[in-house]
Amino acid sequence: MRAGPILETILYAEDLTAARHFYEKILGLAVYGETTPRFVFFRHHDQMLLVFHPQLSAALTASDGPPPHGATGSGHVCFRSSLAEQAQWERRFAENTIAIDRIVDWPGGGRSLYVRDPAGNSVEFAESRIWDLPE
Amino acid sequence: MRAGPILETILYAEDLTAARHFYEKILGLAVYGETTPRFVFFRHHDQMLLVFHPQLSAALTASDGPPPHGATGSGHVCFRSSLAEQAQWERRFAENTIAIDRIVDWPGGGRSLYVRDPAGNSVEFAESRIWDLPE
Repeated sequence: MRAGPILETILYAEDLTAARHFYEKILGLAVYGETTPRFVFFRHHDQMLLVFHPQLSAALTASDGPPPHGATGSGHVCFRSSLAEQAQWERRFAENTIAIDRIVDWPGGGRSLYVRDPAGNSVEFAESRIWDLPE
Repeated sequence: MRAGPILETILYAEDLTAARHFYEKILGLAVYGETTPRFVFFRHHDQMLLVFHPQLSAALTASDGPPPHGATGSGHVCFRSSLAEQAQWERRFAENTIAIDRIVDWPGGGRSLYVRDPAGNSVEFAESRIWDLPE
């Protein structure tokens, strides 16, 4: 048996207003639902990016609802991004005074551009070839 | 501008041997690379699931490598899974004495099956229709 494709990728942020602004207005993700201050959900291509308030999500107690979870510290996510798109992102981040955290030219080929979301999560834009995946 | 599809989904686990066993042997994911005790990477369908040791990943200091990140507490991930597949997973978890954490029948339709990975991350198997996504 083999699990199906990933349906939900999760990040945590205590300030969901700031998180929503970053993922919706800067990265262009479509908001699917929001329950302030507990979560904001994005539908992105054929899957979901879910941003939860870590403490409020960890405190879930309803036995017929989803089980609790919640992590603190900086998480990480990466979006597919060609070199040309990375150049566009660099301009977009500069226009919005978002600092570039790191640029990595991988020894095996391929490039990654890193910024931080408002919660401090590491957000990467990478060529898919860094994982030997087709573009 | 709109970010490309998610390329990397991240979880954290201090015991990467146990994490590898769970994701490789129980869930059937393909190991792409492993550097004990810092990370184990899985190539899954057209993307990556990366499991990092949170403290060792947060302690990265090389200025030409990836920036540090690392979260503690239970994270969350969800895999696409039809009802028939969820029934298969239930049998598989029973055979491996992995407890079912929760089953949720969503008010809007669709079902989720939850277990915990060895690090305590909440691992969900859900019908894609819970997000109005096609199967």
